[in-house]
Amino acid sequence: MTILKYYYDLLSQPSRTVYMFLKLNKIPFQDCLVALRKNEQSSKEFKEQLNRFQKVPFIHHGDFKLAESTAIVSYLAREYRELVSDHWYPKNSKSQAKLEEYLAWHHINTRLPCTTYTLYKWMTPIMTGNPPNEKVLAQYEGNLVKGLDQIKELWLSQGPYFLGDQISVADIFAACEIEQLKVVNYDAFKGRPELKAWLERVRDLCNPVYDEAHAVINKIAAKSKAKL
Amino acid sequence: MTILKYYYDLLSQPSRTVYMFLKLNKIPFQDCLVALRKNEQSSKEFKEQLNRFQKVPFIHHGDFKLAESTAIVSYLAREYRELVSDHWYPKNSKSQAKLEEYLAWHHINTRLPCTTYTLYKWMTPIMTGNPPNEKVLAQYEGNLVKGLDQIKELWLSQGPYFLGDQISVADIFAACEIEQLKVVNYDAFKGRPELKAWLERVRDLCNPVYDEAHAVINKIAAKSKAKL
Repeated sequence: MTILKYYYDLLSQPSRTVYMFLKLNKIPFQDCLVALRKNEQSSKEFKEQLNRFQKVPFIHHGDFKLAESTAIVSYLAREYRELVSDHWYPKNSKSQAKLEEYLAWHHINTRLPCTTYTLYKWMTPIMTGNPPNEKVLAQYEGNLVKGLDQIKELWLSQGPYFLGDQISVADIFAACEIEQLKVVNYDAFKGRPELKAWLERVRDLCNPVYDEAHAVINKIAAKSKAKL
Repeated sequence: MTILKYYYDLLSQPSRTVYMFLKLNKIPFQDCLVALRKNEQSSKEFKEQLNRFQKVPFIHHGDFKLAESTAIVSYLAREYRELVSDHWYPKNSKSQAKLEEYLAWHHINTRLPCTTYTLYKWMTPIMTGNPPNEKVLAQYEGNLVKGLDQIKELWLSQGPYFLGDQISVADIFAACEIEQLKVVNYDAFKGRPELKAWLERVRDLCNPVYDEAHAVINKIAAKSKAKL
């Protein structure tokens, strides 16, 4: 059997998503950790031998190299179709299209606002020694509020999960982005009880894998909360 | 046969991409124009009956509704597999994965910087009567330069097209984003002859459909150039 090497760092949202997808579907893989904090991805060797995008997550499946989390999940759902339960990545053409509609929407509307806000608020003091610029932060928060409101309106109005009655990778992709907000003490659930209830449903259904994937950022969030 | 209704406005980049994909593969569809300039997408009826995302492009295939251009193209490649040439959207799992790797990368790295720069530079004077803020524009241009340089380095180093020897929808998605830059007289090819040569290859291969899809923005670009 071709060996699947999974390169990741659980500090990265899409890394957590693919990790959960692999574990929940019992896809055997070889753990290949990349330490983002040590900037391991920025070397010339990494670029030439491991991943030309110099990011995580990515896979090596035999000598086939693939990056981009949504493409990885789609590929794994095909390659391990006997292991992956249909609801995670539906084979029916229309159901698959509805999943891919979310996965396309996700990049700019969920991932970008959640990650931009968190990284700016978290990293500015670490990188510069100064607090974040209030005007810039307010602008990023505006984008974040819009993103979270749209999730509630566009994706949680159709049933308990993004695609309706059953959980899919869409829910995991979104949950991993939203979870990171606690690192900077941002309460995504204020005025959004539906979002909170949905995230708890996703967590319950995916545990213990969900908490395992989030252990690192839960630790950082606890420290961040203690500082307040 | 189920009727395919295609809702679009050729002012929109992803609308042009899906339009070209439909025409190049001779997929029969019913033309449903949405005038973005008249804000037709913002009404309550549009949201409830046509597309809850209030954007273009989208399709109605019988009573199945689908938005997001990359999801639409993936769906059409499955539904019209006897019409769609394999190179546009490969069926082989690994080739499909490489295409989807680009389509995932596209959102934040090609589409976002091209569209943000163009819309800001083009729309600010129209909406406010004032020229664009120079500092903001310089920031957007920085992102655009990075995006265009990455296309050259990451996607044009593997062959004449993004996936290697054969053209795929990845090339059309990227070309439609880059083409819009001429509306604001931005020269994407300065110092990037490989990008120019690639865009000409894509255009030649897709013509006359390419020029047909770009007729509206070519007209706007000509007016914009005449003003200089």
